[in-house]
Formats: sequence, C-alpha cells, structure tokens
Amino acid sequence: MSFDAAVHAQAIDLDRLSLEMTAAAGSGHPSTAMSIGHIVTVLMFHSMRWSPELPDYPTSDRLVLSEGHAVPAVYAACAMLGVHVGTDPDNRRPLRIEDLQTLREADSILDGHPNPLEGFPFFDAATGSLGQGLSVSAGIAAAARLDKMDKRVYCIIGDGEAREGQIAEALDHIVDHKLTNVLPIFNCNGHGQVSAVSKQQSPEVLQKKLEATGYQVQVIDGHKPDDIKNAFDAFVAISADENAKPMAVIAKTVKGWGSPTMSSANFHGKPVTGDQLEKVLEELGERRTELTSALVSSDSFTIQPPEQAPAKAGAISDIPSFSDTMKSRDMQTILQGGRLATRKSYGIALQTIGHHNPDVVALDADVSNSTFTEYFAKDQQLSERFVECKIAEQNMISVAAGMSAGGKIPFCSTFAKFVTRAYDQIEMAIVGGANLKIVGSHCGATLAADGPSQMSLPDVAWFRSLASAKNKEGNPLCYILQPADAYAAYALTNVMAEYEGACYMRTVRNDVEFLYNDEIVFNLGGFEQLSEGRDILICAAGYMVHEANKAIDILDEAGVSASLVDLYSLPFDEDKLLDIANDNNGYVLTVEDNYGGGIGSAVADALTRSGEGFTLEQMYIERVPKSAKSPTDVLKMVGLSSDDIAARALEVLQVAAV
Amino acid sequence: MSFDAAVHAQAIDLDRLSLEMTAAAGSGHPSTAMSIGHIVTVLMFHSMRWSPELPDYPTSDRLVLSEGHAVPAVYAACAMLGVHVGTDPDNRRPLRIEDLQTLREADSILDGHPNPLEGFPFFDAATGSLGQGLSVSAGIAAAARLDKMDKRVYCIIGDGEAREGQIAEALDHIVDHKLTNVLPIFNCNGHGQVSAVSKQQSPEVLQKKLEATGYQVQVIDGHKPDDIKNAFDAFVAISADENAKPMAVIAKTVKGWGSPTMSSANFHGKPVTGDQLEKVLEELGERRTELTSALVSSDSFTIQPPEQAPAKAGAISDIPSFSDTMKSRDMQTILQGGRLATRKSYGIALQTIGHHNPDVVALDADVSNSTFTEYFAKDQQLSERFVECKIAEQNMISVAAGMSAGGKIPFCSTFAKFVTRAYDQIEMAIVGGANLKIVGSHCGATLAADGPSQMSLPDVAWFRSLASAKNKEGNPLCYILQPADAYAAYALTNVMAEYEGACYMRTVRNDVEFLYNDEIVFNLGGFEQLSEGRDILICAAGYMVHEANKAIDILDEAGVSASLVDLYSLPFDEDKLLDIANDNNGYVLTVEDNYGGGIGSAVADALTRSGEGFTLEQMYIERVPKSAKSPTDVLKMVGLSSDDIAARALEVLQVAAV
Repeated sequence: MSFDAAVHAQAIDLDRLSLEMTAAAGSGHPSTAMSIGHIVTVLMFHSMRWSPELPDYPTSDRLVLSEGHAVPAVYAACAMLGVHVGTDPDNRRPLRIEDLQTLREADSILDGHPNPLEGFPFFDAATGSLGQGLSVSAGIAAAARLDKMDKRVYCIIGDGEAREGQIAEALDHIVDHKLTNVLPIFNCNGHGQVSAVSKQQSPEVLQKKLEATGYQVQVIDGHKPDDIKNAFDAFVAISADENAKPMAVIAKTVKGWGSPTMSSANFHGKPVTGDQLEKVLEELGERRTELTSALVSSDSFTIQPPEQAPAKAGAISDIPSFSDTMKSRDMQTILQGGRLATRKSYGIALQTIGHHNPDVVALDADVSNSTFTEYFAKDQQLSERFVECKIAEQNMISVAAGMSAGGKIPFCSTFAKFVTRAYDQIEMAIVGGANLKIVGSHCGATLAADGPSQMSLPDVAWFRSLASAKNKEGNPLCYILQPADAYAAYALTNVMAEYEGACYMRTVRNDVEFLYNDEIVFNLGGFEQLSEGRDILICAAGYMVHEANKAIDILDEAGVSASLVDLYSLPFDEDKLLDIANDNNGYVLTVEDNYGGGIGSAVADALTRSGEGFTLEQMYIERVPKSAKSPTDVLKMVGLSSDDIAARALEVLQVAAV
Repeated sequence: MSFDAAVHAQAIDLDRLSLEMTAAAGSGHPSTAMSIGHIVTVLMFHSMRWSPELPDYPTSDRLVLSEGHAVPAVYAACAMLGVHVGTDPDNRRPLRIEDLQTLREADSILDGHPNPLEGFPFFDAATGSLGQGLSVSAGIAAAARLDKMDKRVYCIIGDGEAREGQIAEALDHIVDHKLTNVLPIFNCNGHGQVSAVSKQQSPEVLQKKLEATGYQVQVIDGHKPDDIKNAFDAFVAISADENAKPMAVIAKTVKGWGSPTMSSANFHGKPVTGDQLEKVLEELGERRTELTSALVSSDSFTIQPPEQAPAKAGAISDIPSFSDTMKSRDMQTILQGGRLATRKSYGIALQTIGHHNPDVVALDADVSNSTFTEYFAKDQQLSERFVECKIAEQNMISVAAGMSAGGKIPFCSTFAKFVTRAYDQIEMAIVGGANLKIVGSHCGATLAADGPSQMSLPDVAWFRSLASAKNKEGNPLCYILQPADAYAAYALTNVMAEYEGACYMRTVRNDVEFLYNDEIVFNLGGFEQLSEGRDILICAAGYMVHEANKAIDILDEAGVSASLVDLYSLPFDEDKLLDIANDNNGYVLTVEDNYGGGIGSAVADALTRSGEGFTLEQMYIERVPKSAKSPTDVLKMVGLSSDDIAARALEVLQVAAV
C-alpha cells in the first residue's frame, strides 16, 4: 500500500496548491487541476524519466498538457520538485512553492496556460487552445524516433476537448506512423465548461472509438494510484516497439476530486476563496487522513533520470546555387527555357537542403505532387524525414510544432488555401516559439481553374498581422515570403532553413519566367528593384511581379517611366522603399493577387508613418473570384491584368495632373 | 433487372459527360466523378424528392457534395435533367448538355467546385475545401427539423477527405442532435491525390469507427444499383425518426470506374484527352453494352417532387430599446450602475431578438456562459433554436452555413480566439453566400489572466481582408463590428440580425462604462465621434475607446485638444473620417488591442487614398502578450494604457513641432 498512500498524499498536496494558487490569482481552473492530481503525480514523480534540473533535456520523457487550463497541477508538482525555470537557459533557478502565489501575474513565469517562452521550459509547446496537444506529442515522438531516442511522450487530453476533430486526426496519424511512444491519456471528468460532456465523449464511447481507430485501451480510475501506474507500465512495455498496437488510457476522474463541495457543483474555471476555500481544504485534509494512513517515511519517489543525449548533428554546409543544382539534376533544358513554377523550385530547394541539413524534415497533406515536396519524399536518403500527414492540416501544423520542439526544422506544405485550416495551430506554435516553415502552394487567384475553394485570398493579411509583432529575439513573429521566380524561391527556401523562427512562403502553380540569377541575394526583410523609373513606383510580389513587368512596358510606350519593386518579403526595409517612392514623385501603386490588407496596406502603413504626402493606389482582388481557364483569364476577371495595371497607373498620374 | 440496367446506362452517360467536360476544360477530376456516377444516378434520378425546375425549393431533399472536386458527375446529371440554373432566381433556364463544354470558363456557371452563387442553385453551399460538407448537411437538416419539414440530406464524402477531423466533429454532432435525416455516404475509392488512402480511412476501419460513434452502417458496392437503392431505402425508412440510430453508408467504389485504363493508374485530377479519351470512352461503351442488355424502353426514372413548402414565418418586428429591455429584465441596477460587458449586452440582445425573429438561431461551442448566449439557450421559448456544438468550432461554423441555407439567421458564438479554428469554414460559407453572424467574445488582450492561448490578436486583420472585397450585392464580404459599450453591442446585434450577409462582432470580457444611449443609431459602415478637438484625432474601437477616452483627459491637462472617434465598424465612411483628420491638422493616432493590420491599416489605407499629407501613428500590440491579472496590467505590458496613448499623442505632436 505504500505507493498508493504516497501518491494520494502527493496528489492531495498538488490539489491544495492548485486551490491556493488559483485563489491568489483570482482566476484559473482548480477543479480541472484536481481531476488530474493523481495522474500528474504518478507521471512526474514516478513514471517519467526526466530531470527537474534540466526540464527540457533532449532525451527526457515529455508531458504535453493538451488541456492547458489544468496547468496548476503541473505547476504545483514542479514547485514540489524544484523544477528549473527562467527565460534564460543559462540562468535558471528552481521553482519554489511561494512562486505559485504569482500565478498569472504580469511578471510571473507561471502563465495562465502552458507557455514555455515565458520561462517554463518543462513544456515543449504552448497549449490552451484545445485539441492540439496530441498532434504536438506525435511530433515530439517522431523527432525522437528519427534521432533513435527512446523517449516517451505522455499527453493529457480533456474529455470535452476530445470533441475537437484534430484529436481524431492525431489518433489516425499516430497509428499510420506507428508512434507507439505516445500515450494519449483522456481525462474523463465528465464535465465541460457549461454542462456535462456529450455522451459521444463518454468513457464508453471514447473506448469504442479508440479501439475502432486501432488502439489498445486501458480504462482506469484516474484517482487510483496502482491503476494509473499499471497503465503507464503497460505503455512503457510497448512504447519502443513500433509494431505494437498503440496504447491509450481512459482515466475516469472527478472534477474537484477530494472535495464534496467542489465535485457536486459546476466549479469550472472558478477559483475558490475565503471560507469556501477553508472548507474545501478541510475536506481534502480529511481525504488525506483517510487515504494515507499507510504512509510511512520510506514512501518517497525516485525519478529516473533521462539517458545521456547524443551529440547534435552537424551544422549546415552551403548549398549549391540554383543553376548548379539544376545542372546536377539534368534540368538544363528548364534552365535554358527560362521558366519554372516557384512551387517546383521550392521542391528542388527542399530536397537539396535536405541533403545538407540533417535537421530539415518535410510534412505534407496528400498534395506532395502539387507542392513538389515529392522530390524530398521520394529521395531514398530523405524519405525517412518525410511525414505524410494525409488530408489533415491542423494535425500537420501541430506535429511540426512538436518536431520543432524535438530539434527539427519542419517545412509544412499544402495549398495556401488549406493552410487556413490550421491558423489557430500556427498561432499556438508561434506562441510556443516553434521554428516553423510553412509553404503554401497555388497561392492567390492564379491557380484559376479550380475556383475560389482552392484560392488563398486573405492569407497575406493574416500573416502580415503576425509579422507586425515581434518575438523575444526582436524578429517578426512570422516572415511572409513571395518569390517571383524560381531563383528567388530556391534562395528563399534556403534562407528559411537557416533562419530560426516562423516563415510563410507562397508559391505559385504556373511556370513563370526567370527574373533573377544566382548572384542575387535574397534576405528576410529585403526587396528587389527591377526597374528604375521616375514617374510612379509599382510594388508587387509573386506572380504579380510578372504582370507588373508587362505593365511597365505598356507604360513605357505611353511615355511613362515606372519603377518596379519586387516586395518579396514582408516586413521590408521601409526607409529604402520610401526613398524610391520619393524618386517617383511620391506616386505608388501596389498590385497583389489577394484580398486587401496585404502588401498594399503594408506600403500604406510605411507611407503614413513618414508623414509626407504620398499618393498610393492599391490594386487587389475586390470580389470573390470564380473558375477561369488560365491565370490571364482570372486576372482579367478580377481587374489585375497588365493592361489593368497600366491603365490604373495612368489614371493615378492623370488624375494627379488635373 | 431493369432498374439495374437503367442506372448503369445513366451512370455511364454521366461518366462519359464527366470525361468530355473535363477534357474540354483541360482540368478537373473525371476519375473521382466516375467513382460516384452510380450513386449520383440513384440519388438524383430516383431517391431524392426534388424538382429540376426549382432546384433550391425549400422542402426538396438536398445533395451536399463534400468532395467538391467530384462535381462533374452532378453537372452531368443536371444537364441530363435540365436543372434550372442562373444567378437571377427570376430568370433561370435549364442546363443543357452543350453547357458542359463551358466547365471552368470565366463566364460559365459551371465552376470548378460547387459554387451556388455563380448560378448553380442546386447546391446549398460552396464546397471544395475538404471535410466541411457533412457539417453543412447537419445544418440544413437541423433547419428543416425546426421548420417541421420532412427533408432528407445526402452527403457524399471522399475517403481521403474523411481524414479531416471536422468529419468526426460532424458525426458526433449528428448523433447528439438526432439528425437522422442526414445520410453520410463515404465514397471509398481507395485513392487520394498522391497515393492510396490510409488504412485508417479504409472501408473496414471507417465502418468500425462509425459504429463506435453510434451509426448503423451499410457497406455497399457503390457501383451496384440495387445495393445503392436498398441502402437509400433503409435511410428513407428511418430518416424521420429522431429516435432511430442514424445511418451511414460506406460505398466501395472504383476511381475511374468502367475504364480499365483509368482505374489501373493514378488519374487523380487529370483530364483525359485525345486518343486516350477515345480509348476510355470505348471502354465505357463496352461496359455499357455488357451491363445494359436488360434495358428496355420503359426503363425511365421518376423523380418524386418535393412537398409544398409551408409559408415563411413573419418578418421582424422592432425590438425594444436597450433601456426598455434592461428594465423589463429587472436589470435597472445595472442600467443605473452604468457599466456592463459587451458580451453580456450581446447575450441580452440575442435573446430579445430571438423573440422577435423566428428565423434567428444561436450556436455555441460549450462556452455559452462566457459568451452569454446562455440567455438564449435557457429561454424556454428559444431553447429549441439553440444549438450546442460542444468544443468543435469548425463544425459549428459549417453547421451555421447549412442552417443559413435552410433560411435561418445563425449567430455563432465562442471566444474570438477559437473562431480562428474555423477561418477556412468561414471563407467557404462566405463564398457560398451564407448569412452568417459570428460573435467572438473575450477579444483582444484584455481578457488578461488566461494568457495568449485565449487572446484573439490577428483576427481584425483577417476579417478586414475579407471586408476589402465585395459580394454580388456590393457589400463587403464581411463587416467587422467592435462595440465599445453595452448600448452599441445591443444595437449592433440587432443591425446584424436585420442585415443579410456575413458579420463578425468582437465582444469584451470585462464590464465597461456606458458611452451611449438609446438614441444613438449604429450602422454598418458608420462610426461615432465622441470628442471634438483640433490638435490630433485618436481612432479606437471596443475596449480601447475607454483607454483613449482617459488619454483625452490626460492630453487635455497637457493643453492638447484631441478628437476621439469610435471606429466601431470596418469598413467605415472614409471621407467623413478624413474631414475629421483635416480638422485636426492631419494628425491621426490609431489604437487597437490586437496585432497590426486592423484599424490602423484601415486608416492608413484611407489616408493614402486621399493623396494628402497626413501623419498617422499606429498603436497596436507588438509582442506576444502573456497573462496579467487585469486589463490594466496587460495594457501596460503591451504599451497600450491611457498613459501610453497620451504620451504617444504628445510625441507625435512634439516631433511634428520640431
């Protein structure tokens, strides 16, 4: 009985601390935390192999708290164990019990939900937006497998949370990729925020669903220490065996366990204070007396340390130039032909980089023959590092966040439109500091024939909003890259791989002419001036650079000397652009094949910051496009053909001349 | 055998037309279309009760093609049946076989994927971004149930598509809400775009999962007419019985059925042309001869017409003023106290409107006690029109799109952060013309204590991008509304209900002071000037109006006379705002509690359009916020407190003075 008593004693201590810290914070979720007190105790004090001094040690087993609002239980355990905390990896200190009183304060490392970048490296990922943790776990587990590490990942998922479809995606993914080193633990306390959890997420139905999905399921009492331990032992026994059936645990738990006051009413997200807190603590004390009579002084836990981490793989060596790469692939004909789709150039770059950087991994969602990650996938030396995620974009992004936490550099590719599916996951990955590269193909409207269901139109605006804020390194939360030709796409893929942080690159379906050569250097935050005029500055990116280029010729014939800037990066060097605008009498025209809020607004922001009088005309897509047979047809439809661009430029100048 | 032969003959005709139209288009998915030729034939020529002359008749059974890329099969059937098409409901004409040759052309009503607004009213919703159709079907079915219509909804889902987690969400939703009038039909042709569909989406595993989820499953050969008919007959028998077990069909099919050439290789998304087309058509001809020997002239189909539609419920009567509503609810104390959270005022408005407009329905994702849709949910007269969607936001939005197609006015509420989860679904709903109202609570950073995982920060930028484009009525694809007080929230909720089109409203967690009264009129596209100064114009919205208001007082003490505009709507009247900016010497400061790209960029766009020299300073959130105990603390953290605003205004003016 001593293990049993020790777990109860410890769990009740965690419960008490959860209550006290949320009372001090004036908010938080003590009742949910109390439903996982025992599970957290067995995990963190017994089953996991890890080190409180080095909570993010590479080979340590990991706990991903998908239901992030239950975090007080983990904070409490970390305070008990003196887990090292702090934003500076070289200057951490043990978490103390008294720190718990700072929960949710502006200068506390104890954020409302798991938030590693605020100084809590025990967690690999930010969670709190529900349903994402199991995918993250799968990513961590996959990275460990690639590195031949025997690392186990425990993921606690709420029952209400299990309604999120991403959980189903992750469960399938784990089976497909034989990630038996992940253990999904469903915390079935039966209560959501408003009312009871649906019968569809009851232990009974969840068990059936999990079994149907290919899991061996242990249904346990989540407050019985031996039950919990046995389940985790069973997982430990199979976790290194890729051919085993993956395991899942359904833990029947009680929200507000240990306190009749709290477990008999809806205390979701409600801290307990004053007399009520006294009463609840008293109730817990009674439970402790009752359950820990067998506790003797030898009832301490031993935490198994992690294995020594292997040495990290070598750094990047320089990749060959685009021309050299094309020659080495017998693609000289294309090189001479002078046209290639940026999506294809991206695929070529990714494969090349894969050979030079062992950390680079590629993920795709059943469209690798469209995004051209198939070059990577089909390369025998790289295929192990290709992760086919099937049609489940949310899962793909969160898996990538997990792989990033495991030291990988994940490139995620699908149609730019379908990236939208995972915007919440992208935000969470960025909050958690993931080194995420997202490449959306078939961007904008120029994919034409498939119609609006496949067109990414508000994407530049959304990523630009992320780009407007900075991370702790002072870089934008995300860079947006829109290569206009194959040279640019090749170079920028390499730039992304070398940069540590989030990037979103848009590639285009159709072949486009080469504009650049191997000598051009592309930088995050840079742009390229393609033609130097004096009457009006045209800014474009991606496919639209080509239309704008044609417009320049038309304008030239009309006697107008226009400048053209390829704004391939957002953000960009604003001062430099303003200089060019000034050289063009302050007339600027932006052109983009998406809805507004993209480069047009970026230029508007820059111009208005200056306080000088510029005239800006923005051209973007102002209607929902429909199918058309060619990019030319669709650009005419939405008023963005080269003729339209030239006409608009003339209009701006003529109106100005009147 | 005659039904069997007739279906084969018809299906093969559809296959042939699918091949021919995609060949003419030069793109499209004939092989997928051919895998559902028989299913579409039995549905549209036999099982569905509908009218080709009135394809969107309210009581008609509906077909939702979730795997939108299979649409050539449906276009072919519609051409055979002369289904009426056209963008103007009063001026439609039958689709002809020769129209099929225009597939995907810029001026064709036959878009690449189902797209009702381009003139194809047979479809209720735009599909093509995968995984959304079953949720839409559930919404159509729920609307029909509310209207006591015996309407059946058939939904064809691809097997690869079934990997999207939203399908799992929809399956749970259908069980929870007893929507036995929806039939999910899984088209298991076994092939995705790149390669074989995962075993996790095989007929065997899908069957187990569906049964575990609570479905009775019929596994059929999707090319055997009688199998198909019998399955649909079984569905018809239970579809009106809410207490029956919902049904699902797993159809084993062949991609490129009928053509050995196409079914033995990967023809995903590849039209067949030239000699190859000849060969494939020949192969189909052989199949036809083989399978239709029993066909005699009497083998025609009879399509059952729909029931007479009931009269539409009455129009909206005016709702009482906010003050009157508060008084009638015994909330005078709050009215006198002068403070209320906008989320609460929204809840009060929604309940009030619910009583005045029978079409209004409310959906929520397990946070109705946070969004205050609980007032609607707990109202006995309204509770039938409340749809608890649990923690599954993607499904919620697509269900709402379906309910809109069924004539309802759906208000969807959850935390603004979690709305992000469904951005792709929102885009698709807007493409399909849904009358969608989205209300995100706890917006921006001022929810404070829960931290960034619960904060909506790039949301204004994203919705503003949608707002930059216009729908066929000339309105923005979506309005963004940010009420600053309870009066505004109440009024704008009513404005949303009366307007036909998409709106996104942001509500705030904390109580805020009243700024307005019952007399103020709030309009889509409007704004309110709260103070009239001459030195600098401050523009804010939502919670930030209150901080800006305090800043105005600080500035006043410093001898600066500032104007304040509450930009509660995006887009807004730009000319009017420019006039106010001019009255303030051209100095403008925008303040918003989200990342950039929101109202700051909206103002920048407006100012630069004018060509005059304005000075704009934008204040927005430039870092990832973390938890803090109060809105005040979090605004200080991100540099948006009233002191910060006043200081920045002075800086702008001083810098200008130098």
